[in-house]
Amino acid sequence: MTPIALVDEMKESPAHGSVDVKRVNETDKEMIDLVLRQFRCLIADLCQQFNGGHPGSAMGMAAIGVALWKYAMKYSPSNPEYFNRDRFVLSNGHTCLFQYTFLHLTGYRAMTFDQLKSYHSTRYDSLCPGHPEIEHEGIEVTTGPLGQGIANAVGLAMATKNLAATYNRPAHDLVNNTTWCMIGDACLQEGVALEAIQLAGHWKLNNLVVIYDNNQITCDGSVDLCNTEDVNAKMRACGWEVLEVEDGCYDVEGIVAALLRAKASTDKPTFINVRTIIGIGSKVAGDAKAHGVAFGAEDVRSIKQIFGMNPDEHFVLTDTVYDFFREIVPRGKRLEENWQELLASYKEHYPELHAEFIKRVEGQFTEDWRSIIPPKDSLPTAPTASRKSAGLVCNPLASKLRNMMVGTADLSPSVNMIWKDKVDFQHPDLKTTCGINGDYSGRYIHWGIREHAMASISNGLAAFSKGTILPVTSSFFMFYMYAAPGVRMGALQHLQAIHIATHDSIGTGEDGPTHQPIALAALYRAMPNLLYIRPCDSEETAGAFIAALEATNTPSIISLSRQALNQYPQYSNREGVTKGAYEFIGEKNAEVTLIGIGAEMVFAVETRRILREKYNIRARVVSFPCQRLFEAQPVEYKREVLQYRSQAPRVVIEAYAVNGWERYADAGYSMASFGKSLPGKEAYAYFGFDEDIIAEKVKALVEEVKREGVECLRGEFRDLNTTNFT
Amino acid sequence: MTPIALVDEMKESPAHGSVDVKRVNETDKEMIDLVLRQFRCLIADLCQQFNGGHPGSAMGMAAIGVALWKYAMKYSPSNPEYFNRDRFVLSNGHTCLFQYTFLHLTGYRAMTFDQLKSYHSTRYDSLCPGHPEIEHEGIEVTTGPLGQGIANAVGLAMATKNLAATYNRPAHDLVNNTTWCMIGDACLQEGVALEAIQLAGHWKLNNLVVIYDNNQITCDGSVDLCNTEDVNAKMRACGWEVLEVEDGCYDVEGIVAALLRAKASTDKPTFINVRTIIGIGSKVAGDAKAHGVAFGAEDVRSIKQIFGMNPDEHFVLTDTVYDFFREIVPRGKRLEENWQELLASYKEHYPELHAEFIKRVEGQFTEDWRSIIPPKDSLPTAPTASRKSAGLVCNPLASKLRNMMVGTADLSPSVNMIWKDKVDFQHPDLKTTCGINGDYSGRYIHWGIREHAMASISNGLAAFSKGTILPVTSSFFMFYMYAAPGVRMGALQHLQAIHIATHDSIGTGEDGPTHQPIALAALYRAMPNLLYIRPCDSEETAGAFIAALEATNTPSIISLSRQALNQYPQYSNREGVTKGAYEFIGEKNAEVTLIGIGAEMVFAVETRRILREKYNIRARVVSFPCQRLFEAQPVEYKREVLQYRSQAPRVVIEAYAVNGWERYADAGYSMASFGKSLPGKEAYAYFGFDEDIIAEKVKALVEEVKREGVECLRGEFRDLNTTNFT
Repeated sequence: MTPIALVDEMKESPAHGSVDVKRVNETDKEMIDLVLRQFRCLIADLCQQFNGGHPGSAMGMAAIGVALWKYAMKYSPSNPEYFNRDRFVLSNGHTCLFQYTFLHLTGYRAMTFDQLKSYHSTRYDSLCPGHPEIEHEGIEVTTGPLGQGIANAVGLAMATKNLAATYNRPAHDLVNNTTWCMIGDACLQEGVALEAIQLAGHWKLNNLVVIYDNNQITCDGSVDLCNTEDVNAKMRACGWEVLEVEDGCYDVEGIVAALLRAKASTDKPTFINVRTIIGIGSKVAGDAKAHGVAFGAEDVRSIKQIFGMNPDEHFVLTDTVYDFFREIVPRGKRLEENWQELLASYKEHYPELHAEFIKRVEGQFTEDWRSIIPPKDSLPTAPTASRKSAGLVCNPLASKLRNMMVGTADLSPSVNMIWKDKVDFQHPDLKTTCGINGDYSGRYIHWGIREHAMASISNGLAAFSKGTILPVTSSFFMFYMYAAPGVRMGALQHLQAIHIATHDSIGTGEDGPTHQPIALAALYRAMPNLLYIRPCDSEETAGAFIAALEATNTPSIISLSRQALNQYPQYSNREGVTKGAYEFIGEKNAEVTLIGIGAEMVFAVETRRILREKYNIRARVVSFPCQRLFEAQPVEYKREVLQYRSQAPRVVIEAYAVNGWERYADAGYSMASFGKSLPGKEAYAYFGFDEDIIAEKVKALVEEVKREGVECLRGEFRDLNTTNFT
Repeated sequence: MTPIALVDEMKESPAHGSVDVKRVNETDKEMIDLVLRQFRCLIADLCQQFNGGHPGSAMGMAAIGVALWKYAMKYSPSNPEYFNRDRFVLSNGHTCLFQYTFLHLTGYRAMTFDQLKSYHSTRYDSLCPGHPEIEHEGIEVTTGPLGQGIANAVGLAMATKNLAATYNRPAHDLVNNTTWCMIGDACLQEGVALEAIQLAGHWKLNNLVVIYDNNQITCDGSVDLCNTEDVNAKMRACGWEVLEVEDGCYDVEGIVAALLRAKASTDKPTFINVRTIIGIGSKVAGDAKAHGVAFGAEDVRSIKQIFGMNPDEHFVLTDTVYDFFREIVPRGKRLEENWQELLASYKEHYPELHAEFIKRVEGQFTEDWRSIIPPKDSLPTAPTASRKSAGLVCNPLASKLRNMMVGTADLSPSVNMIWKDKVDFQHPDLKTTCGINGDYSGRYIHWGIREHAMASISNGLAAFSKGTILPVTSSFFMFYMYAAPGVRMGALQHLQAIHIATHDSIGTGEDGPTHQPIALAALYRAMPNLLYIRPCDSEETAGAFIAALEATNTPSIISLSRQALNQYPQYSNREGVTKGAYEFIGEKNAEVTLIGIGAEMVFAVETRRILREKYNIRARVVSFPCQRLFEAQPVEYKREVLQYRSQAPRVVIEAYAVNGWERYADAGYSMASFGKSLPGKEAYAYFGFDEDIIAEKVKALVEEVKREGVECLRGEFRDLNTTNFT
């Protein structure tokens, strides 16, 4: 084990100024003993109170918590948003009482004792939900779904590296915080964590410290049931420094030493393998039974006796224990003051950089992004793949907006997100070892083939400080199914991100059904607080970016074609996109409304033409790139666009499962099966996406409606594509 | 490197009888040179033909292919379904030309030269789609989405282990095949693969050989851009044997030696790290440009010159090359004959086991499963969580049906899938080292916290031979979002599986919004060939299992509650579930139809009561557990259940996003936001799920319809829940 003396050797950087590193002295040791005993009994009480919750790991991790909040971490309870604070992520989010209790002890104002006791209560205003939630003081990210937190932590550490490389100057380390992340046995099994671990090692994020609560227990029992790998060797192979602490239940001094050594690591992220006992002190200590249920009144009594506490007293935190943590608020204030002084000096020396930095701290874009969006008349008029249109719109943005970090899950040649003179986000060593043009100030991210980590780490980038970094991810739309849990966590946390999802239909062609999305849009259209935007041409693609950039509390997926799409400058309209849907081609006394979307707009427009030329039927066309944006419009606008009360039926045309369009249409021309490997045009043709066939079906519908009245359509949605509906 | 002499030491097992292991002799070496040259030029031609496809890796892997198909693998081209064949999985599925060409060379009848040339063509009947598809001869699983194939391979190897442990007897190794899996650099980055790798190491699947096409190139360029781990050390840490081959482009002898040594591995899966050059022979050899585009006519000429072929000739495979592979068809037939002889002897010695084994080979259940489903009168009548109901139905099935392999992503205490006397699927060593009651004959699988691998490996279990193994997975419904890419691949491949998804609504309670699914059902309801079934009580849960068991070409998700649900024996009906929806509570001249689903059925039934008692409104109730099953019913049945043409509006009540229900209802009481951490009942109450509130909203709707006619509802879906719709 690292000698504690190491602590003395630690050099504090200017940002943290003269605030000394705390050491575990002899007086502390006695106090720590009391803190651990009270803490563990309190956790047992808090779970027993409503007979639920996750007590075991929180009790097991108590000593780690003392080491972190009392000694290792730099933060300011009186200003939880202090910019250069260390970030703490509880990846094993079900142990949230661990964090809530330390937030209470260290003086976070919102986390009153009354609040602490609201865990698992029926209180609507509880700050102690079953997993930590970003909305509350002292919580950096919402965790719970396992593996997400450690991925977020990688993103937080990347954010520090990128901001530091961009703004720090000699003697002015404005951003040099550490990211600390607790994980349990479970996170080491989730794929998203394993992806994130590879990346953190690759990027040599030495400001990231992952503390492994190694209690060898998961819900099913011993970890031996499903994992017998050599985790330390594996982490080393992934490029991590590995430290170990044997007695993680009591050896606060040893844990502090490991934490500080980890912080001093020069060129690697650190993995601290801390051996703990789940539910320590209880009758089910070391057993899975300690994981997710209260111990029962009898065992809670026994726990108190074992820890030398009065079994008849509940929720005990004595003044001496509070006193132990009382220094932290003023210590945090001094941290902030030092940082403000540094910032003042920075302003003097680097006024322009300072101005930009402050903008970003305040969550503002570095440039007026609206002026960077290309005007309509500069966009192509010849058929263009919307993935190319996206490059035309996004590349100038990415070039100028230093907030943007743009990456791809290994599809650079396909997604067109590279701008001229882009620099990769990489450890600068790679320049010499591999000749790669990158360093930590770079803003182009090669995520590798790791869609899930891409989305989840991006949540960490976005969560560093609201609006400071805008992550842009990219991959084929189909593979945003891999990324879905991360995308969802971004939506849940109101974190802005733009996901560039190309190859978004059967038109993607030869790659076949594995790569052709059919059902995925239904997920994203149904997902709260997410914009799934499917533009039909370059102008609408510009509109999609405008909508996504305006949505500062919401992630967006911009869904794009592989294949060239007809451009409709005479009809398409970026403002229309921001309203979700709009009239694309008007028609007086229309007998039918055709709803066209994205890559399949061509079928709506051409079907309209056939209807007129061949059947003398008047059709209007509505473009409908985003359901959620449309839902937000006034009812009058919605009725005008969709002409709810008219006698003309509405037919939606899209090569996806139709689910959800029934709200806006009476009939659909869509997909009910998986796709097929064929060149894009033939894939469409194979599934009956052909204007002549569609027009014939629409004609029959129009005739039926004329014959029987539009009421015949109420409540019986018509699937017009008979090629794959059985 | 392993000396080739090792091949001589290999002991062939009885199943493969007297068929000798092939060796690379001197004559072969000359032929191999020719094969590699022609193979590589052919790949270049096949991509150039339609100016697309993935030539580079297929060319780089040629020597590996020769080693596999000519020397190492046991298979029978004249009977691709030979039961004890080795399984080959191309996890880097985009290199499919590699596999197609070897299928052609080794005499798979369907893979004619004409077919081979249909890659990337417009032919609807092509057997050469852009990624391998399970429907075609010689293809074990559909691959393409990266990481899936290696997970499938783990499942295939597990199937062998389980069948061997169950049926093999002394001198009668009926099942002892090897699973070979090719992967590229990408698969080693995907989380699902990393999860599967952990599990294969844990289970010590020594019948699994993964061959790593280590060309250090992905779409973006050098792997150094995003991965600098020590992969060999990592694989060893995960419990794998690691072998290396330096010259993977030409050293067939060395590759064969490694493959055979891997096959002889006694207690570990093997990872063979084979160094290759992508696009070898082309001008872009070793570059990402060789990955996913044709080389261009000029470079194809140059490739041919470099390989000593005539640049003016195309698609050349000479007779001598065919001759080299010609022995394989008879060799395969001898393999089969030996196996049939062994089977005959087995029948004599073990007639009962033989009968059961044959049933399974033929894809039949080992027992009459219908007789095992508990009858209605045996089911609970007191409130019961449907996750408990699922245990009541599934445990007896799992106990008796040896086809079933039931597992959980570390939620054994929550999902109730453990049956009495279950034995774990584990390496038998764990009995002594960890005291775990398991061996390879065990059928309860601890997947760990690896939902994605659970689903994807299960596809491999199901794909071993159609119907031989029925995988049952389990987790919280929310975490089937992690598993979604695997679930989808099962649906695409028509592989039966049953996914037990518990904690399926905001009623899951305190765990909060991270664990409460809102949008996920929209994905699974839209997904082709998948049954998402949400039963409302124990009887319906029995119906859900019946539907899932009957669907032998379709995976099912059975969606279950955490919380206790009222039982409705007077209304609920298992046959109704198999029709997707049915009248639950009839009512003459009903003024409104309430659609109840799963855990929220209680709100439909209670709202009906309030409507009658308080407002004197007559309501009928429809139970609607599965949209896809309902869609398959005759139109008359659908109209009868939903009363399309009646004047009574239909209101769907479900605590999910309503997307997709608009097809069946005029109005919805649903969720438009994420959930909230509260005890289950309070979570429902918080979001307005309260029969009094719902009844008031429904009453207003009924009154409006009476006033304005039901036509007023056409095309303007009503969201009645105003608590979270903005």
